[in-house]
Amino acid sequence: MLDRPASAIRFKRLLLTGAAGNLGRELRPRLKAYCDTLRLSARGDTLGAAGPGEELAPADLADKAAVFAALDGVEAVVHMGGVSTEQTWESIRDGNITGMVNLYEAARHHGVKRIVFASSNHVTGFYRQDEVVSPRDPVRPDGFYGLSKCFGENLAQLYWDRFGIETVSVRIGSSFAAPKDRRMLATWMSFDDTERLIVAALTAPVVGHSIIYGMSDNATTWWDNTSARHIGYRPQDSSDVFRAEVEARQQTLDRDDPAVVYQGGAFVRTGPFFAGE
Amino acid sequence: MLDRPASAIRFKRLLLTGAAGNLGRELRPRLKAYCDTLRLSARGDTLGAAGPGEELAPADLADKAAVFAALDGVEAVVHMGGVSTEQTWESIRDGNITGMVNLYEAARHHGVKRIVFASSNHVTGFYRQDEVVSPRDPVRPDGFYGLSKCFGENLAQLYWDRFGIETVSVRIGSSFAAPKDRRMLATWMSFDDTERLIVAALTAPVVGHSIIYGMSDNATTWWDNTSARHIGYRPQDSSDVFRAEVEARQQTLDRDDPAVVYQGGAFVRTGPFFAGE
Amino acid sequence: MLDRPASAIRFKRLLLTGAAGNLGRELRPRLKAYCDTLRLSARGDTLGAAGPGEELAPADLADKAAVFAALDGVEAVVHMGGVSTEQTWESIRDGNITGMVNLYEAARHHGVKRIVFASSNHVTGFYRQDEVVSPRDPVRPDGFYGLSKCFGENLAQLYWDRFGIETVSVRIGSSFAAPKDRRMLATWMSFDDTERLIVAALTAPVVGHSIIYGMSDNATTWWDNTSARHIGYRPQDSSDVFRAEVEARQQTLDRDDPAVVYQGGAFVRTGPFFAGE
Amino acid sequence: MLDRPASAIRFKRLLLTGAAGNLGRELRPRLKAYCDTLRLSARGDTLGAAGPGEELAPADLADKAAVFAALDGVEAVVHMGGVSTEQTWESIRDGNITGMVNLYEAARHHGVKRIVFASSNHVTGFYRQDEVVSPRDPVRPDGFYGLSKCFGENLAQLYWDRFGIETVSVRIGSSFAAPKDRRMLATWMSFDDTERLIVAALTAPVVGHSIIYGMSDNATTWWDNTSARHIGYRPQDSSDVFRAEVEARQQTLDRDDPAVVYQGGAFVRTGPFFAGE
Amino acid sequence: MLDRPASAIRFKRLLLTGAAGNLGRELRPRLKAYCDTLRLSARGDTLGAAGPGEELAPADLADKAAVFAALDGVEAVVHMGGVSTEQTWESIRDGNITGMVNLYEAARHHGVKRIVFASSNHVTGFYRQDEVVSPRDPVRPDGFYGLSKCFGENLAQLYWDRFGIETVSVRIGSSFAAPKDRRMLATWMSFDDTERLIVAALTAPVVGHSIIYGMSDNATTWWDNTSARHIGYRPQDSSDVFRAEVEARQQTLDRDDPAVVYQGGAFVRTGPFFAGE
Amino acid sequence: MLDRPASAIRFKRLLLTGAAGNLGRELRPRLKAYCDTLRLSARGDTLGAAGPGEELAPADLADKAAVFAALDGVEAVVHMGGVSTEQTWESIRDGNITGMVNLYEAARHHGVKRIVFASSNHVTGFYRQDEVVSPRDPVRPDGFYGLSKCFGENLAQLYWDRFGIETVSVRIGSSFAAPKDRRMLATWMSFDDTERLIVAALTAPVVGHSIIYGMSDNATTWWDNTSARHIGYRPQDSSDVFRAEVEARQQTLDRDDPAVVYQGGAFVRTGPFFAGE
Repeated sequence: MLDRPASAIRFKRLLLTGAAGNLGRELRPRLKAYCDTLRLSARGDTLGAAGPGEELAPADLADKAAVFAALDGVEAVVHMGGVSTEQTWESIRDGNITGMVNLYEAARHHGVKRIVFASSNHVTGFYRQDEVVSPRDPVRPDGFYGLSKCFGENLAQLYWDRFGIETVSVRIGSSFAAPKDRRMLATWMSFDDTERLIVAALTAPVVGHSIIYGMSDNATTWWDNTSARHIGYRPQDSSDVFRAEVEARQQTLDRDDPAVVYQGGAFVRTGPFFAGE
Repeated sequence: MLDRPASAIRFKRLLLTGAAGNLGRELRPRLKAYCDTLRLSARGDTLGAAGPGEELAPADLADKAAVFAALDGVEAVVHMGGVSTEQTWESIRDGNITGMVNLYEAARHHGVKRIVFASSNHVTGFYRQDEVVSPRDPVRPDGFYGLSKCFGENLAQLYWDRFGIETVSVRIGSSFAAPKDRRMLATWMSFDDTERLIVAALTAPVVGHSIIYGMSDNATTWWDNTSARHIGYRPQDSSDVFRAEVEARQQTLDRDDPAVVYQGGAFVRTGPFFAGE
Repeated sequence: MLDRPASAIRFKRLLLTGAAGNLGRELRPRLKAYCDTLRLSARGDTLGAAGPGEELAPADLADKAAVFAALDGVEAVVHMGGVSTEQTWESIRDGNITGMVNLYEAARHHGVKRIVFASSNHVTGFYRQDEVVSPRDPVRPDGFYGLSKCFGENLAQLYWDRFGIETVSVRIGSSFAAPKDRRMLATWMSFDDTERLIVAALTAPVVGHSIIYGMSDNATTWWDNTSARHIGYRPQDSSDVFRAEVEARQQTLDRDDPAVVYQGGAFVRTGPFFAGE
Repeated sequence: MLDRPASAIRFKRLLLTGAAGNLGRELRPRLKAYCDTLRLSARGDTLGAAGPGEELAPADLADKAAVFAALDGVEAVVHMGGVSTEQTWESIRDGNITGMVNLYEAARHHGVKRIVFASSNHVTGFYRQDEVVSPRDPVRPDGFYGLSKCFGENLAQLYWDRFGIETVSVRIGSSFAAPKDRRMLATWMSFDDTERLIVAALTAPVVGHSIIYGMSDNATTWWDNTSARHIGYRPQDSSDVFRAEVEARQQTLDRDDPAVVYQGGAFVRTGPFFAGE
Repeated sequence: MLDRPASAIRFKRLLLTGAAGNLGRELRPRLKAYCDTLRLSARGDTLGAAGPGEELAPADLADKAAVFAALDGVEAVVHMGGVSTEQTWESIRDGNITGMVNLYEAARHHGVKRIVFASSNHVTGFYRQDEVVSPRDPVRPDGFYGLSKCFGENLAQLYWDRFGIETVSVRIGSSFAAPKDRRMLATWMSFDDTERLIVAALTAPVVGHSIIYGMSDNATTWWDNTSARHIGYRPQDSSDVFRAEVEARQQTLDRDDPAVVYQGGAFVRTGPFFAGE
Repeated sequence: MLDRPASAIRFKRLLLTGAAGNLGRELRPRLKAYCDTLRLSARGDTLGAAGPGEELAPADLADKAAVFAALDGVEAVVHMGGVSTEQTWESIRDGNITGMVNLYEAARHHGVKRIVFASSNHVTGFYRQDEVVSPRDPVRPDGFYGLSKCFGENLAQLYWDRFGIETVSVRIGSSFAAPKDRRMLATWMSFDDTERLIVAALTAPVVGHSIIYGMSDNATTWWDNTSARHIGYRPQDSSDVFRAEVEARQQTLDRDDPAVVYQGGAFVRTGPFFAGE
């Protein structure tokens, strides 16, 4: 958690979906600092007990009624829920496609006007690692997961153009305690920077539908966030301090491996596609 | 049908999906001219009897096995199937999202290497009518239908990048016998030009995943196809010959109506969104 | 005048300013074909008698009251008035700067919602003749006259953004019976094409503030109108038929003369700047 | 004032116009550090007594002779003069349009070769706050004031292309001691950074006509100065240190208010336009 | 040869290099129509006898003195000379690199101010056939030959920037009597269009250094000449009339063959590179 | 030399060409830190004795056999060799054109897969100092030297596209101990930053053919390296600390001197061009 909050704006009630996931658990105490009540949502019985200022709203994203209930009375949503890795098409369709439709219909129904959407760098995973991509370049998803995140971004655009619901789509790189391999020297976003970015996305006065890549201030980067500077995100960490250690661990790379060549890393060659039709 | 075929390339077996729809029925005799066998697919019992050189493969696009069967042994697919107007989310999800996944998995399974995909101008329906858009500009879908076509294009990109299946996504404007209103003076594509475009998309030597707007050579246009000139489509008809008649019928427009302002026309303000949550 | 009208849209009352100028006199009978009443405006007593379906509204553009009177009750304005060559700063300020403010304030007052503004290629006259410029490129005016036309375009943008008054700014090249020199092989716009362009600008359903270069379909051109294709202007004449004659008359050019090098021609080196401060 | 001068380049005589305005008074002692003689100009009797190394040249910008006198013998001009808020058209025309013509004609007459022109962010005030704009994007002024600054920039371009007089047009954001509201978290430029920018503009070896947005190193920004990096301006302050305080004071915003949505803030809805024609 | 000359501009003396090559022989009688004297150059004794209005200047391009002699007294050069296929590095270096330096030094020495340079589409041969490239995109040569043409274009740029010698670099596609294969449906330029393009390049008033792709008005194209429209080239032939015949001859393509995938065709996989180091 | 190595990646054997030049001598001890063996190459007998971990491979770049020998067994090459100033065409041709062909053919022969190529800012030396250029903009070389570096970059592109040999072309600005004049306030790259950039170029996992300008983090810059951020170069020095001293020494500039106006500085007006043909 940051020494001081990244913003003085305070919400009455925020909803955090996917609160039981790895990143959701990290964000749970952090987001609490910006609201009176933090409502937490996740599938099944995974959230533990509600702490002070917390309330629970378990929901399967494919369950329309449950999602509608979860958005009742919230000012804004941080949507971390859904499938976050390459899985079967059915799982991804239910969690990330139907789930997104449910979420935005619920927002429309309840008059929720701001959503921070956890999109992913895998929407452009088939660009090469020697290319610098901006949020306005055409997408090149690297699997069903990335494809579902493209869907989510386009849905957010639709609900902005048609219903005036604002979204910041954050194409998260690699939000971990530390970069795990050389690819993450480019994609890493520290937890503190993740908090900074989400808070900026929640509090920027006007965002319409904006797209931003989620990364720290790494020397190596594949993404140009110039078009998203209006959001006010300024990363303060960098993968550079981990470089020596990471490089020492992974001296050699196989440049014939698509996972080395493309930005999506291993995502470009895994997944249930190959489950043997 | 054209006086002479638009190409001398001949296929052994083509698949036309959506063959019972309005445009499908128009294309059925036209595509026959370019192949030994034209396989026709549509939902239920809507195709009538197979003519000479035709064969029938009825299939609901959401039915994976039926779709796999339909693609068995074809060289290329002209995919006109699926939902073609604004309908309930569930219909669109089944026909245009699950249906597309089934189609491309079937293509991968059977080694089909070229698909012409009927996308739609509604993927960019929320651009204004005083803007000129190119296939590389970000999408702005105008409803669930347009959103599902964005999904289809992104899926096509994925199957190109990952599996080498080529697609031409044709963002069809208004393929009718004649333009019906002033909006269609920009969006109209004659049936002959539709044939020309589909045949070019089928026969161009290399297309990767290419996107092109489907329109005739209209004086008024909102779309810049420069980036798709490699496909070799040259329209030969024009809405201009209908202008006087169309304008005489529709002298005045209400510029406060979003359907007048945006490229998507009436799509931008209709649909089951409003079915009263 | 065209064999048949370029559009079937008909206006109750159009205002043509600058009706006594060279181009205004050419347009006077042509525009009559598209309206019940054509109101004509010009400075002083230069308009002659009103013909059938005509009415006169003499006005100095710097005279606010007269301009307000001229716009009373009109549906749309074709603004050809003001100074059209390089003259003293004071003349240009009064006719083209104060005059434009008066015109647009009058439009706002009277609820006039569409103006076709005779801008000029001299807003970009300091680009070289070996450059191809689009309406989105930064302006490079070649004198006070071009500068005043930049002002007019920016004013039109303001009244669109703020008050919803639509304008097509037409950067007229050289509207004459025939091209007079080799520069005009690029800049020429026939009178028939001028009519086509003005009528398209008046009748296009939605224009916001659009900028288009006014030229015929000349082989040589310095301007790329791709971004203005939504207006629906399709030139049908070409300077090419005059090429042999023009080149025969002007075999040699002095490439050290800025008038030969820059698009603005002689405008780039003339004007009251040099009137000896 | 800066601890040490931002440049070691020294001028014999600089002219500061608008020296009696808010920003002018702030710059008066700062600019003195870079020249032997600082000539000060303003309207009427507002400049007080000349200090050491200062000389006074009172002038109404609409008064050609006075302006010519003010530029006699100066090496470069920092032009802060003219109207700096939304006022009547007549005031703006006299101060910012006629005044600019007088200033540049005087520069031409006296051989002054470098001008730093205080343009304004209001030349692009009708872009939304979720857009990032560069100096090459088309202008969208938000009122007569912004429109007059567009005129000034275009005039500067003309005098560069035609007469070789160099200008840096600085689109000043909000030059105050501290940001006053959430909009200024984006637009704020500290006085020290203002000095840094003006000095860079005066001393860069070659500028032609360059345009740069004047802002500090704020996390939130709507402007991309990449194309102006040749000027050598590196801001060293940031609105970020004021963020908590500003946000605490202004927790809520009305997103239906154009002043919240557009970059120009309150300028987009005020002004003598509404003075009741 | 054209029915009527493409231009009425007439030169006293033109130099045609490479006059004994395939294209040179085609151009020899055509260019004669635009000049009093046509000087012909080629290597060795390959030019035959001089006809009326012709004079011979045999020269090896690597022979500086001979090249200087060939340019003495000419108004403009059509430079078709040098190596025109993939050959040994030494041949290409002598003919296309040293040869170009000799030619431009000779032009500088003799005050020749306009050169039409036969560059080649092989400067961008490593773009894919599903990409549309413009003259401003980065080069991607497909072999030593293409590389030498990049050198020639850059040399032309240098002599324009530094010495004011104007060049039109024509990236010739396939200048033959008819397209020979499906690739040439995109790249073909008829001999008549070749004449039109060269004459436009010779006679356009101002060209600086301009780059244009040399092709006819083919439906299929990989190149966007928008930026070169100032040259005034308007093709009047099209490969489309040969399409049926070409496609009938070449029904199938091997999409695993780089010669099918890349614009450079067979050039991308042949050449003395493979001569076994 | 840096306090700690810029990377933990270690090479078995690196080749440094041009090791006897000014920059080569500076790099010799620095590069040793990243490899077991540093092979040094230069013309003639200029390398002194081999130190620990060094080995010598003297070679004239025009000598194919010697170059082939020098690349035998190396993992990667830092190519600083060749002519580095404006010299006779013959010298530049031999060292920088034939030399580059020899180097890349040797790399192909020996399977060397990564080259860092010392290109030069003089490939774009004819841009003005008030322009900001990116690696994707067209080149504008300022002399034979710059032209030969364009050739080298294009050759590198060819060997990447065709043979999969990766290159980072570094357009070195001014790599000296300190900036010597006001131009170098923009172009300066410290020796430490030079080491950082070369090491990043050697160790980045994937580079294809990438182009990057070599400069420190100077406030004044003419180059936009956004497209090369994937290389991971982060400069840590700045010419700003030398500004006062440099400006004090060079107060005035002659803006009529092309060396002041253009980015290439004195290169734009010197060289053996003028050696009196």
